[in-house]
Amino acid sequence: MEMNGREKNAENGIESEEQMSLETSNIKKEKNDQGAEEMSVEKIFENKEVPSWKKQLTVRAFVVSFFMSVMFCFIVMKLNLTTGIIPSLNVSAGLLGFFFIKTWTTLLEKSGLLKQPFTRQENTVIQTCVVAASGIAFSGGFGSYLFAMSERVIKQSEEGKAGFQYKNPTLGWMIGFLFVVSFLGLFSVVPLRKIMIIDFKLTYPSGTATAHLINSFHTPEGAKLAKKQVRELGKFFSFSFLWGFFQWFFTAGDDCGFASFPTFGLKAYNYKFYFDFSATYVGVGMICPHIINVSVLVGGILSWGLMWPLIETREGDWYPAGLSHNNLQGLQGYKVFIGIAMILGDGLYNFFKVLSRTVAGLVTKIHDRSASMHIPTVDSPSPTNKPLSFDDQRRTRLFLKDQIPTWFACGGYIAIAVISTLTLPHIFHQLKWYHIILIYTFAPVLAFCNAFGCGLTDWSLASTYGKLAIFTIGAWAGTSHGGVLAGLAACGVMMNIVSTASDLMQDFKTGYLTLASPRSMFVSQVIGTAMGCVVAPCVFWIFYKAFPDLGVTGTTYPAPFATVYYNMAKLGVEGFSALPKNCLKLCYAFFCASILINMIRDAVGKKRGRYIPLPMAMAIPFYLGSYFAIDMCVGSLILYIWQRINRAKADAFAPAVASGLICGDGIWTLPNSILALAGVKPPICMKFLSKGTNSRVDKFLAPKP
Amino acid sequence: MEMNGREKNAENGIESEEQMSLETSNIKKEKNDQGAEEMSVEKIFENKEVPSWKKQLTVRAFVVSFFMSVMFCFIVMKLNLTTGIIPSLNVSAGLLGFFFIKTWTTLLEKSGLLKQPFTRQENTVIQTCVVAASGIAFSGGFGSYLFAMSERVIKQSEEGKAGFQYKNPTLGWMIGFLFVVSFLGLFSVVPLRKIMIIDFKLTYPSGTATAHLINSFHTPEGAKLAKKQVRELGKFFSFSFLWGFFQWFFTAGDDCGFASFPTFGLKAYNYKFYFDFSATYVGVGMICPHIINVSVLVGGILSWGLMWPLIETREGDWYPAGLSHNNLQGLQGYKVFIGIAMILGDGLYNFFKVLSRTVAGLVTKIHDRSASMHIPTVDSPSPTNKPLSFDDQRRTRLFLKDQIPTWFACGGYIAIAVISTLTLPHIFHQLKWYHIILIYTFAPVLAFCNAFGCGLTDWSLASTYGKLAIFTIGAWAGTSHGGVLAGLAACGVMMNIVSTASDLMQDFKTGYLTLASPRSMFVSQVIGTAMGCVVAPCVFWIFYKAFPDLGVTGTTYPAPFATVYYNMAKLGVEGFSALPKNCLKLCYAFFCASILINMIRDAVGKKRGRYIPLPMAMAIPFYLGSYFAIDMCVGSLILYIWQRINRAKADAFAPAVASGLICGDGIWTLPNSILALAGVKPPICMKFLSKGTNSRVDKFLAPKP
Repeated sequence: MEMNGREKNAENGIESEEQMSLETSNIKKEKNDQGAEEMSVEKIFENKEVPSWKKQLTVRAFVVSFFMSVMFCFIVMKLNLTTGIIPSLNVSAGLLGFFFIKTWTTLLEKSGLLKQPFTRQENTVIQTCVVAASGIAFSGGFGSYLFAMSERVIKQSEEGKAGFQYKNPTLGWMIGFLFVVSFLGLFSVVPLRKIMIIDFKLTYPSGTATAHLINSFHTPEGAKLAKKQVRELGKFFSFSFLWGFFQWFFTAGDDCGFASFPTFGLKAYNYKFYFDFSATYVGVGMICPHIINVSVLVGGILSWGLMWPLIETREGDWYPAGLSHNNLQGLQGYKVFIGIAMILGDGLYNFFKVLSRTVAGLVTKIHDRSASMHIPTVDSPSPTNKPLSFDDQRRTRLFLKDQIPTWFACGGYIAIAVISTLTLPHIFHQLKWYHIILIYTFAPVLAFCNAFGCGLTDWSLASTYGKLAIFTIGAWAGTSHGGVLAGLAACGVMMNIVSTASDLMQDFKTGYLTLASPRSMFVSQVIGTAMGCVVAPCVFWIFYKAFPDLGVTGTTYPAPFATVYYNMAKLGVEGFSALPKNCLKLCYAFFCASILINMIRDAVGKKRGRYIPLPMAMAIPFYLGSYFAIDMCVGSLILYIWQRINRAKADAFAPAVASGLICGDGIWTLPNSILALAGVKPPICMKFLSKGTNSRVDKFLAPKP
Repeated sequence: MEMNGREKNAENGIESEEQMSLETSNIKKEKNDQGAEEMSVEKIFENKEVPSWKKQLTVRAFVVSFFMSVMFCFIVMKLNLTTGIIPSLNVSAGLLGFFFIKTWTTLLEKSGLLKQPFTRQENTVIQTCVVAASGIAFSGGFGSYLFAMSERVIKQSEEGKAGFQYKNPTLGWMIGFLFVVSFLGLFSVVPLRKIMIIDFKLTYPSGTATAHLINSFHTPEGAKLAKKQVRELGKFFSFSFLWGFFQWFFTAGDDCGFASFPTFGLKAYNYKFYFDFSATYVGVGMICPHIINVSVLVGGILSWGLMWPLIETREGDWYPAGLSHNNLQGLQGYKVFIGIAMILGDGLYNFFKVLSRTVAGLVTKIHDRSASMHIPTVDSPSPTNKPLSFDDQRRTRLFLKDQIPTWFACGGYIAIAVISTLTLPHIFHQLKWYHIILIYTFAPVLAFCNAFGCGLTDWSLASTYGKLAIFTIGAWAGTSHGGVLAGLAACGVMMNIVSTASDLMQDFKTGYLTLASPRSMFVSQVIGTAMGCVVAPCVFWIFYKAFPDLGVTGTTYPAPFATVYYNMAKLGVEGFSALPKNCLKLCYAFFCASILINMIRDAVGKKRGRYIPLPMAMAIPFYLGSYFAIDMCVGSLILYIWQRINRAKADAFAPAVASGLICGDGIWTLPNSILALAGVKPPICMKFLSKGTNSRVDKFLAPKP
């Protein structure tokens, strides 16, 4: 479940509501006068001047954005490489951005040096830039397709075999690759912004939520609450950081420290049921809706509690006995392929669901628009006979003021596509120029589809489009021509385009609602993306160098989706021949079950559907085990109890507390990897031994007489 | 620092204020109308009938008392055997007694079976009975003189030597011994109750505080608060119990589990600086005044952080190299004897201080009394010309209603003394009949002194009188006649007498303030003592059988004062010959320092004296290390932060929370020892290994190819 930023919100449809609840309390006052809600927002800001688009792009905003990008890249990278579950970090980005600039401007104001006050527009610029940069940390595929090409990951799946093709990550080609593919998405959807935002009035729930958050920060009441939220965030940030630091001391050696704490006994630990004291995933559990956490736990119990122990009893029959634990011909194969089957089933179902809604929505919108064409002026009442509100008028006027010429967008797209087509085959020899041209021909359509679908449903299907590319290009290239690597590379190209496209449109919506100029949004997104293209590979590089067992199953950073993506690509190229006995049958069953569960979820309606687990979430522990599911459920439980004790306070502060927990632990990975790079080993090992082993060890350690 | 129940309150003079703060909030209403405070109490209860003394002694009260006695015996025993620091458990006893009977009566009331409502007097009876019973768990010397006679303890101090005399605990003689010595104290001070309570109007701060607490429970407002406090207590009780249970799973083997957690690193752990996650001592830290906790920590840093490492560098010079770590000829000798020196210095200083105040107080009181003899009627105004308040009148009338004849007290004392003199030499062959007669001749005087001093200063000197007996009787018996054991036995006789005497007088004061009859108080105290004489040895017996390394330095239950008492007795009999080089000089220095610090504390006045550490508290970690000091300081810190956040709430609930933590962990020792007796071993060892050791162990455990 690769849930990056907004994509996350999408994959469950509840997250955005969660987030809304935060700013619900932030802008409670406005919500009170129902109906006129939107109206009141711009009335509040009426006497505040909106700076020109150039003035919205301040140097300080980009300085702050840079530091926050580095921080969020670390956090996202850590999440990528541990479980691949990435919750929405918009609230923390918003809070921290506001906090840093506000501190800065307050200091300058006191010293009398402040030239330009801190505006909502500037805040939106920071938010956009940071989310764009940390988005690259996800769509760059460091936990999935890109790392899947490395020798380290492939060696595990191709155990004992020689002669497989691989491409180890190096800083040079990663940065180059990201630069040539990450900007295409931006140029491809820029011309459509007016149609999507003004004419179609797409909701973009996450973008809207972010805008509400930023608006609320700049009201006096909202600023006060934000200050308190920042304080909570800071408190839990420190706690989480120090907790990470404290844990470090006890991790000399494998299976040492709190992360290997057999909370429910050693037997349960062997089946990956334990609480690993990770502040990150407790925080993630607090942000994710309860059903996600429960789904993950259900998936863990189903797989590690039931299926794997049962399949294990067939050792020697279904698969050869005595294989190493990460040989895909053995139990590991069942874990990986059944997981892939569920993920594909879920992805396919949702792809068609969102596609059908996109088409239906498109038809309606175009119909509406052609009806409204007769009265094209902005100030006139809309065709639904509702008069355009004060807010809408003001927002539309400002949104349309700064134009980005279509020739610029088209020219940019073509220029980058040409450079990209020439460069990419040099990076990946398996990817031919005709593959790339095929992708770039279809990419704008898919980018539009994704941006439109995301606007309707808040659901970005970037990774699904990526998987599509894996199978098509992989099969086309074929085994003999290194189809696996070609497929993975194509996946990267596709994912980057469609992911940045929907991100940009989200930002346009945020900009629309905060009166930030589309130009400044675009520039900010471009700068953020450029930052991400440099920062994200560097951060990955630090992890890669600091932890030599990065990507190895059962370690701190197993990078689960790297293995999954590699095997998906292999499946696409080589077919099902490599699977162990009965595995294919089980895969079919779980593929169908995944689609069936989704259908039931949709059939029973939103209310009762909330209690049915999500197949995508269930699939993750199939491969990893339930330890992070326990963390997340602990987070859920804390949130639940807090809500029972004080609903209002929990709703206002839980996202801040969760962000603090995630960020603190995430930032701890920076000093942690520096210590690892410097060769500093922790001094103590907290070891867990069974009674019998312990007495053996005690005897071994006793001073010889 | 043997701080039993009320004795604890005494040894710092702040504890009682702490406790008062709880009922300050309980009877806030009364405190509001200043000056008339006492007046209002009995006015509130005016229309409530006071049951006759026989009706105050209900069966249900003693049933509840019995269960609570067992519980508190476990708690006190655990504290006795771990560090010897026993905080005041009056609040928890009060709260729980109220809670149990209230639940009982409420249930009966609902079913219509309630014959007798729950009165303050009955509550006082329970409180008295429970405190008397758990008092025996302390004054029975299971952590000090009595256990000091056992082979296990002596063997450690007399390492390698043979032929020493010992007396191992068995259930039979322990119960017999307690029965023949524990009732003497009661009979010796009974005749003086009118003089002490009515004529001298001694304050007995702890007794008064308990009475206020009980009174407050029986006002509607107080009952509501008490209910909330009980709920908090219950919550933390469960938490603490479950935490103890959870910890248990990880303690297969020595140096395993949370109690061996090297929180500050392995080096600090070797010098006993670590947080051992003990809920008990965090709770104790919350009850004890900050200065006690700081004193313990200062003592720990001074000894284990500075002195022992320095003395260790003289190994081979000051003491022979290569001795086992608990050989008294080595470093252990410095630890034990310097600790003893400080304790003796502190004890001696306070003995003379309290004695002088007792004599001065006595002179004043007798002078006052002989002046008031001219107007002996109760209802007339007191000699100080203040009219006797309504409360005082009512209380005095009821206190004087039920008499205990003096012939009964004297007869009882003589009868028990005779039985005791005949029996004791059969239990301890080293103790002769003339030793016992000497003790019993002086005992009533000392009992009176202690009861009087305690009434003035809240400071029971039972253990100091006990030490006096060790030195005098020990020296008299001499080495050849087993002076060590004679001294320890004499200590037991003396301690039991003076401790129960001051307890009884405290209870009379409580009874006076709650209108409970002196007769019911006396009977309750006798029954409670009898319960204690059976329950306490049984509880000790469970510990003794369940934990074979009970009393061994460095284990979970080191019983520190057993070693200290044994060596004190040996010192008294054999002189200073056995001490290692320079140890005597250091002992003199610390003995003087201890007296000096006390003098400074008193000289600078109460306000600034609060910031000077207590020598008695400083001495405990000399022998044990600082681990429990860390726990206690954590408790202090929690309380401090809580008070900073919400003073009123902290004052009202901190004692309940602390009691919950102490009781839950204490009660966990019951199933813990049952598991140990049944031979059930915990399944996991949480081990802490240094980096180097860990890699050796990993190599050892790796499957041989």
